[in-house]
Amino acid sequence: MALSSKHILGMEHLSRQDIFKILSLAKQFKKQKKLPSTLKGKIVFNLFFEPSTRTQTSFEIAAKKLGATTIHINTAQSSTVKGETLSDTARTIEAMNPDVIVIRHPSSGAPYLLSKILKTPVINAGDGFHEHPTQALLDILTIEETKGRLADLRVLIVGDIAHSRIARSDIYGLTKMGAKTLVCGPPTLIPPFIEKLGVKVFYHLKEAVKETDVIIMLRIQKERHNQLQFPSYREYIKKYCLNLETLKYAKSNVMIMHPGPLNRGVEIAPEIADGPYSVILNQVSNGIVIRMALLHLMTNGEHLGTAH
Amino acid sequence: MALSSKHILGMEHLSRQDIFKILSLAKQFKKQKKLPSTLKGKIVFNLFFEPSTRTQTSFEIAAKKLGATTIHINTAQSSTVKGETLSDTARTIEAMNPDVIVIRHPSSGAPYLLSKILKTPVINAGDGFHEHPTQALLDILTIEETKGRLADLRVLIVGDIAHSRIARSDIYGLTKMGAKTLVCGPPTLIPPFIEKLGVKVFYHLKEAVKETDVIIMLRIQKERHNQLQFPSYREYIKKYCLNLETLKYAKSNVMIMHPGPLNRGVEIAPEIADGPYSVILNQVSNGIVIRMALLHLMTNGEHLGTAH
Amino acid sequence: MALSSKHILGMEHLSRQDIFKILSLAKQFKKQKKLPSTLKGKIVFNLFFEPSTRTQTSFEIAAKKLGATTIHINTAQSSTVKGETLSDTARTIEAMNPDVIVIRHPSSGAPYLLSKILKTPVINAGDGFHEHPTQALLDILTIEETKGRLADLRVLIVGDIAHSRIARSDIYGLTKMGAKTLVCGPPTLIPPFIEKLGVKVFYHLKEAVKETDVIIMLRIQKERHNQLQFPSYREYIKKYCLNLETLKYAKSNVMIMHPGPLNRGVEIAPEIADGPYSVILNQVSNGIVIRMALLHLMTNGEHLGTAH
Repeated sequence: MALSSKHILGMEHLSRQDIFKILSLAKQFKKQKKLPSTLKGKIVFNLFFEPSTRTQTSFEIAAKKLGATTIHINTAQSSTVKGETLSDTARTIEAMNPDVIVIRHPSSGAPYLLSKILKTPVINAGDGFHEHPTQALLDILTIEETKGRLADLRVLIVGDIAHSRIARSDIYGLTKMGAKTLVCGPPTLIPPFIEKLGVKVFYHLKEAVKETDVIIMLRIQKERHNQLQFPSYREYIKKYCLNLETLKYAKSNVMIMHPGPLNRGVEIAPEIADGPYSVILNQVSNGIVIRMALLHLMTNGEHLGTAH
Repeated sequence: MALSSKHILGMEHLSRQDIFKILSLAKQFKKQKKLPSTLKGKIVFNLFFEPSTRTQTSFEIAAKKLGATTIHINTAQSSTVKGETLSDTARTIEAMNPDVIVIRHPSSGAPYLLSKILKTPVINAGDGFHEHPTQALLDILTIEETKGRLADLRVLIVGDIAHSRIARSDIYGLTKMGAKTLVCGPPTLIPPFIEKLGVKVFYHLKEAVKETDVIIMLRIQKERHNQLQFPSYREYIKKYCLNLETLKYAKSNVMIMHPGPLNRGVEIAPEIADGPYSVILNQVSNGIVIRMALLHLMTNGEHLGTAH
Repeated sequence: MALSSKHILGMEHLSRQDIFKILSLAKQFKKQKKLPSTLKGKIVFNLFFEPSTRTQTSFEIAAKKLGATTIHINTAQSSTVKGETLSDTARTIEAMNPDVIVIRHPSSGAPYLLSKILKTPVINAGDGFHEHPTQALLDILTIEETKGRLADLRVLIVGDIAHSRIARSDIYGLTKMGAKTLVCGPPTLIPPFIEKLGVKVFYHLKEAVKETDVIIMLRIQKERHNQLQFPSYREYIKKYCLNLETLKYAKSNVMIMHPGPLNRGVEIAPEIADGPYSVILNQVSNGIVIRMALLHLMTNGEHLGTAH
């Protein structure tokens, strides 16, 4: 039952079959009242070079729920402030004999680097503008459990597509699972040649929402932009904030997602975030079972049968 | 055996009967050599928006002693730095399915807000100038176990009464348990109308200590005052520091308390803090059993009987 | 099987017999596939007043591997920012009833102070320029398992000897175990009178490496020096960086150590750090079993026999 992929670095190279395995186990964990301690005695190392609440906490809870010990290192207290290279930090951690290393890093490719020099399985918890595969997996699970399927769904992603690792991972993952992806945002925030991935591009939100089954609103990451990529927030909000007015153009059974944390009134209106179409909190809950499934599959994959 | 109150937001609205239940279970935990793992599989979420060593650590130890998993979030690493509202942070945490949320927040009423929007039990670990109920409960336990009773004791609280959430919680709690509360401090630091709560006000420490059984010295919270509320530290120390000279006016069996951390030589002289009347370290120990009792009562309350 | 020493404050006063016991148990833990939970129900308090990744993480993993609960306090969140004295912080922690307190502190002698006022066993995890005994113990274990013995080995320590707590602890420990210690560095970084400890002093690296069996390269701690103790980094690197050129003068079976984190290209050339003589990562692994052995011996020392 183990995955064919040793590391989880991105959705681009994760196989359809591995995705099915992960989703299937996550759904099984979700139904179980009493969880098996399949990770008892195992050590999950969370190595976070960027601040994160929900992803780090989600991994921590997932690991502990299966009985693992978690070790958390963030850069503030890390040797990297003492000038250590990422490779040396990684090798030092591996010498402590962990069972999985979860890494978030501001540089695209940092998890890949680790996977090349370490024997320990590595999970990418977000790297620069590259990928955030566990977010894509929880998004896929949330869509599938709400809509009952993935094939032929039209999923629209709205916002700063060019700098979003979530957008990249969602596009790779959803396309692989048979969904059709669409993106919408200011021309400066849409990467060139994205159509080559099979993505349809829109610049007007009202038009984009018309034929979509799922809308994923990306967060405007104020803390990442040294300078605005668009004329003004006011302008952005006017054109790309999802509100009741825009939603009138959407299907009556559209579902609304957001990876969080929310900028209420910027990319999403409060009445949408808290409204009946929103599955934002389901995404958070699903994040835990997705990460449980991954940790289980990447560290043993065999004992589960005996425990439930 | 569960409490009538689902959340612990303050002493003002906690019933006498609930206080008795908490004290009783805390005393039972204190006597037990081997603790039952009544919180095994449960998750206690510590959400701290203000730095804290003793309160946070005390909750962490209490939870772990009963077998719970603890998750700690402080603002430095939190999404709140990314502009998330407190409500959204709280809802996100609840979507991760914790069993109790412990919150410390600089704004009075933050725990109340959480209790209104969440289904998870909430414990106030200190909110602004409002309340700090677990401190009051551990103070009450410490007084009762030292004096053998609470009824008709005269308990004096000295310091910045106006800005102290501990003073408020102690006054509510002690009054409810039949003790008589007195306060002493500079006129600018005594809230108006406090006599309406049944509190007697003093401005001179030597006079105030005369008929008291218990003296609670509050900490001068330098880090909270943007400007001093009194002419000078020197003046404050001269008038309100508890020292051997002042203690001559007190009863021979007076007991001295302080919530910590101490400003030695400011509000309390070292020889008093380390002297025979001081029960300051008992307060720390009692903090753990009080929090164990609360966590137990708020999450299940039924399995204890089988385990001891 | 308990140690004769209640606290582990430094190698200077640790007995040879205690060192043998610690090494022996560490080796036993290293061989065991399934570790006994001999610290179940015990609390290990990590009190770190200086940032540290490897030492703190190593203690945390060691404690958790034996089933202990760990509590971590670092100064950023600590009451010390509120002006509490170290003694009061220590007494407060002891009132929470921990089983061992591990302390790292920028002031030499801080762990000693704790050992004088507390009943709880104290482990020094590095204090100022004084000692770092667990590093010395893991170094000794690494040397012994690589060389098969300690007696009569010549161990060279290179770098800022004057300000290195690791150098001090290694010199005390290795001398006690029968090895001969040598040091090499710029004259300004060699403490006066060090020969009185039986240490041989060199100022030229090529000469120093000639007859040595083990070379321990110290890290240049840029973050500790307010001003350089030597003319320039360039000059330092030219004279004291261990590289392939220098290594030609050494024995063919010399082993190379470094406590980490590495400044590649400053005190050690990358090809040496990653080369066949380097046991740097073994040091990291051994750090965990050494700390497991210490924690076990200092908290109970009796149950191990029944568990393996």
